[in-house]
Amino acid sequence: MVSEFAIGWPEIEAAQGRIRPWIFRTAVTELQGWTGSTTASLAVKCENQQRNFAFKARGACNAVMSLTAEQAQQGVVTHSSGNHAAALAWAAQQRGIAAHIVMPENSAKIKLDAVRRLGVQPVLCGRTNEDRERVASEVAERTGAVFIHPFDHPDVIAGQGTVAVEILAQYPQADTLVVPVGGGGLLAGTLLAVQTLRPEIQVFAAEPELADDAFRSLKSGRIEPVLRTDTVADGLRTSLGQLTFPIIQSLVQDVLCVSEQSICRCVSELALSSRLIAEPSGVVALAAIQEHAELFRDRRVVAVLSGGNLDQMELLPGSLNPAEKKPAQKSADRSE
Amino acid sequence: MVSEFAIGWPEIEAAQGRIRPWIFRTAVTELQGWTGSTTASLAVKCENQQRNFAFKARGACNAVMSLTAEQAQQGVVTHSSGNHAAALAWAAQQRGIAAHIVMPENSAKIKLDAVRRLGVQPVLCGRTNEDRERVASEVAERTGAVFIHPFDHPDVIAGQGTVAVEILAQYPQADTLVVPVGGGGLLAGTLLAVQTLRPEIQVFAAEPELADDAFRSLKSGRIEPVLRTDTVADGLRTSLGQLTFPIIQSLVQDVLCVSEQSICRCVSELALSSRLIAEPSGVVALAAIQEHAELFRDRRVVAVLSGGNLDQMELLPGSLNPAEKKPAQKSADRSE
Repeated sequence: MVSEFAIGWPEIEAAQGRIRPWIFRTAVTELQGWTGSTTASLAVKCENQQRNFAFKARGACNAVMSLTAEQAQQGVVTHSSGNHAAALAWAAQQRGIAAHIVMPENSAKIKLDAVRRLGVQPVLCGRTNEDRERVASEVAERTGAVFIHPFDHPDVIAGQGTVAVEILAQYPQADTLVVPVGGGGLLAGTLLAVQTLRPEIQVFAAEPELADDAFRSLKSGRIEPVLRTDTVADGLRTSLGQLTFPIIQSLVQDVLCVSEQSICRCVSELALSSRLIAEPSGVVALAAIQEHAELFRDRRVVAVLSGGNLDQMELLPGSLNPAEKKPAQKSADRSE
Repeated sequence: MVSEFAIGWPEIEAAQGRIRPWIFRTAVTELQGWTGSTTASLAVKCENQQRNFAFKARGACNAVMSLTAEQAQQGVVTHSSGNHAAALAWAAQQRGIAAHIVMPENSAKIKLDAVRRLGVQPVLCGRTNEDRERVASEVAERTGAVFIHPFDHPDVIAGQGTVAVEILAQYPQADTLVVPVGGGGLLAGTLLAVQTLRPEIQVFAAEPELADDAFRSLKSGRIEPVLRTDTVADGLRTSLGQLTFPIIQSLVQDVLCVSEQSICRCVSELALSSRLIAEPSGVVALAAIQEHAELFRDRRVVAVLSGGNLDQMELLPGSLNPAEKKPAQKSADRSE
């Protein structure tokens, strides 16, 4: 079967072999005591424990390792406010080539620092999409580096598709997957992998209400822009791409929106109930299962826990013991 | 081969089948960026994500599910300052029988609360071993409940042995295991499983310097008492048992001691470098690999991360971002 899309199963299968030496085969962990869960079983794919703490390592690694020797010599460039930035810096380091990382000045500090720790000084730019793209183009032109788009790139989509390949092998009883959607690289890769391997499995996408562009795009039938960029899920503030949109439009079961409150509560509950640390963008799929519980009743669900770069420590419970509630005054006293 | 010890491989194999419906098959996760590691590979078995956040669920479950119907009717009783308490309360709940849990009044609050959340009111007692044993005996006599020792019990040792069975299946390249030792249930079970399945693998034990009774017991050839009970690793303040000591004496490679500082640093580093939450007792094996790095050079090591009931939130980094150091004043300001 020839895929009607920019990439298909052969590219995902090739990615799987290509990135295996570099990435972690993260665990699928069943959740215990998950508040109000009516699922038959609920498990998470722990990409919060992936290299650099995000699934982005997969796509970036696949793209970098796919370059010809001549291309690689020129280095790579990207723009990203988040986990793709560190992922590309890391993948370039593995191949021993230069990486130029353009990041908005308002990127999360933990994500800026992750890039710096990999020995790359981010090129800061303004906050809009246009700012990012302009600066990245300038760098590409000046250096000759190959541009690796954070999601709308065939090798990146294929790399992200390996998450689903692993889930289906590790948790074959799954009948439903829930995946966060920002630009749609992970979602598109997941949909393509599932379509080939287990087409009867339903794949839902999840995004913040405050960045509900994928939901609106499915309704209108064209790529809708993100209207606000203030969701706490900073990794999901992007609209869909030219490559990802048709795949999503054709194959996704539905796009579920979740409130900011629900995202924040989910970060805390996950630490409390399962000792898992994930960032707000990372828990959106899980938050969708809580908010839309009726859709998942009696189903065997795997949610992708997609990132572990938690900058907002205040989202963690003051103690891992839920019975203990310390008044704010007390914690102020303690630091004196 | 008939085992020379109280239990052997057949009991561990039976335990594996018996507890499978109730416990999690926790992940073995490779660690990234682990400071100063000179191992060929270093992975952890995530029993911090086990039911009730500790491997103790295995032994308690095996013991409770092994009771005859007549025994079970009488309920179970134990004494424990820690994770065995919640594990037994939980296992009894699964079987629908009564549990009487005797706990020292100075037990960690998170561990007392874990028992209460399972619907069992702990019977508080004094701080010494004699206090615990006396009160547990009284309860057993009064109620007819079956006493399930926290570690010196054949079914408990067999249950804990299933951790190693899983590790060897999940991470067959391992040539070295490191396991924390308190009373020695987990260590004895591990040693028996490894002796049968992969006798060439070296098993090291790890304990706090402040509770170095296993180290001293191996030297003297008899069970030595714990001399101090102030280690931050509150789950490892017990001396070896009549059943566990001979197994350990005969099969362990060595007992490694670790400093309090090293245990505390390890809790923080694990959250920072791998987004894993473990309690001080839970990281002692990993701390031993850091402190005794020369022993593990170029080896493929799995450390058991044994408990995730972290009561001491101050051990977690103020932010998961290591580059960020907030002055104490600043965090006090924020809570006003």
